[in-house]
Amino acid sequence: MKDLLATSVKYEQGRLWVLDQHALPHQENWLPCDSVDAMVAMIKALQIRGAPLIGVGASLLLAHLAEQGADREQLEQGALTLRAARPTAVNLMHCMDRMLTSLKQNDRVALVRTAEAIFEEDIKLCNRIAENGAALFGSGQRLLTHCNTGRLATAGAGTALGVIYKLAEQGKAPHVWVDETRPLLQGGRLTTWELAKYGISHTLQCDNMAGILLRDGKVDAVLVGADRIARNGDFANKVGTYSLAVLAHFHKVPFYVVAPYTTVDVDCADGTQIPIEQRDGAEVQGVSGSFGSVEWAPADTEVFNPAFDVTPAALVTGWILDTGIYSQDEIRNGALLALEAA
Amino acid sequence: MKDLLATSVKYEQGRLWVLDQHALPHQENWLPCDSVDAMVAMIKALQIRGAPLIGVGASLLLAHLAEQGADREQLEQGALTLRAARPTAVNLMHCMDRMLTSLKQNDRVALVRTAEAIFEEDIKLCNRIAENGAALFGSGQRLLTHCNTGRLATAGAGTALGVIYKLAEQGKAPHVWVDETRPLLQGGRLTTWELAKYGISHTLQCDNMAGILLRDGKVDAVLVGADRIARNGDFANKVGTYSLAVLAHFHKVPFYVVAPYTTVDVDCADGTQIPIEQRDGAEVQGVSGSFGSVEWAPADTEVFNPAFDVTPAALVTGWILDTGIYSQDEIRNGALLALEAA
Repeated sequence: MKDLLATSVKYEQGRLWVLDQHALPHQENWLPCDSVDAMVAMIKALQIRGAPLIGVGASLLLAHLAEQGADREQLEQGALTLRAARPTAVNLMHCMDRMLTSLKQNDRVALVRTAEAIFEEDIKLCNRIAENGAALFGSGQRLLTHCNTGRLATAGAGTALGVIYKLAEQGKAPHVWVDETRPLLQGGRLTTWELAKYGISHTLQCDNMAGILLRDGKVDAVLVGADRIARNGDFANKVGTYSLAVLAHFHKVPFYVVAPYTTVDVDCADGTQIPIEQRDGAEVQGVSGSFGSVEWAPADTEVFNPAFDVTPAALVTGWILDTGIYSQDEIRNGALLALEAA
Repeated sequence: MKDLLATSVKYEQGRLWVLDQHALPHQENWLPCDSVDAMVAMIKALQIRGAPLIGVGASLLLAHLAEQGADREQLEQGALTLRAARPTAVNLMHCMDRMLTSLKQNDRVALVRTAEAIFEEDIKLCNRIAENGAALFGSGQRLLTHCNTGRLATAGAGTALGVIYKLAEQGKAPHVWVDETRPLLQGGRLTTWELAKYGISHTLQCDNMAGILLRDGKVDAVLVGADRIARNGDFANKVGTYSLAVLAHFHKVPFYVVAPYTTVDVDCADGTQIPIEQRDGAEVQGVSGSFGSVEWAPADTEVFNPAFDVTPAALVTGWILDTGIYSQDEIRNGALLALEAA
């Protein structure tokens, strides 16, 4: 496989490397990843994360294993194991299905070419999404976002953050309000790190402060990513997205979901069919990372900790995809279904 | 002054003691408090907190200083300094005004009696609030709350949590959904500790998960405290309360504010007149307490960190006070103004 380089995943000198996102922003550690078990563990520990990026990473790993001589059965089993590593995100499933199709050709070269294509397509998808989204916004927009949807979540410039990078590139000087995104702090740790690294003006707030920013007219639009979009436009994303959508709706602030077409699951009729991963209570009882590990709640406290939530289409102003921007009416008329047919 | 004992403040052996709430739940340290400066520092560091409790604590301190021989000018200056220690909470101001009135009688005994009365009244106010509130709810109610409004926030059983304790006492077995309450985690550290200590069933969640609990029909009512209630019913409370009120309104879940009459500021026409304390960015960049201190955000990240927010009366189902439960109509017709006259 040829060398491939993104902000948080790379294929170099015949090995796959993952930038450990659990250790960011204090340590920039590149970890080698040589097995399905290692990749699954990295996905579960959020060392590699972001719906598009885990699809890319898992594809590169399978191609690498094929080059290392894994047989067809091992690769097939590996693809199925990886496919199940994050039940909510559909991009990973799409990528694994593509890899399984290539595998049926019984040709290692085909498998490697598919993984390379998935990587390169992701960059192009991000760019098309960004161009579409940036056309919606003028200069000096103040955009609120949740979780991390940038160069740490994709092989390219990101989804929601990709739009923001494009605005900056166009000289429109956006300002970003960054939700810290409890419990795993992807906003407070990762989005702040990324935006500082790439020179985008931003302010960090706790998730429960977004409401007053929206009320006080300090936010021009909310942009979030997605882990799966049902064909009726309902979508799953990092927990907290639903509350944010209700708050934006109440304050009449536009709320956009930003994703590649690969996030759409046409087999999924609506949000009720999206499985939601429940995670360990310790994530809410404290925090843990390269910065240290502390636990503030009494150790036996019962905890509610879903990793994602589902936002209904009725709360979404527009779906910004690589294929265009869709309204509620267009979605109702089957725009997402047409996408698959195309 | 006679001995006085509450869960988190006590007067014993001629000294005032404060249970250090910054160190909870891992350490139960009682700290002596012997000066105005020490009390102001404790209030600012949230070692003593809760709108009713800081009024009680500051009053006991002044009485103690009077007994120790402080002169009138020192006491007057002390009362004014304490009065300004937390600009949002009005109970502290009311208590200091009562102490200043006693001081004008130039009688140390009067000052001591006033402080004792403030302590004892707070317990009775909590009890009346709890009886009023508990009458609203039947068995097995699932009640969501924010911040800490219990035995750590008052000299008595609390305000919003006081209602919940009363329900438990009445055999109605409530379940509490506890917002962790970023950034200072009064829910995750204090409410969990308190509810475990007093045997009340509860579950902890991140603030951004309350929306899905409300949507999924898992919450029968939301109960919160207040730091100041304007005469039109708008009120200030711990940041995050406003978002919660919008979410409860959207999902048609009853939303109650629970407080003693001393939280009402009749001189304040509406919420826009309540000053909001802005706090240090480090509180959002990480967490710090007896459990340790970690900082996860890049150190120079710009932060938005208001300590409180204001919820408009239009989002409140009812105001549960010691004097009764008031509806929006009653508030519009001057129920809170009448309160002062009474």
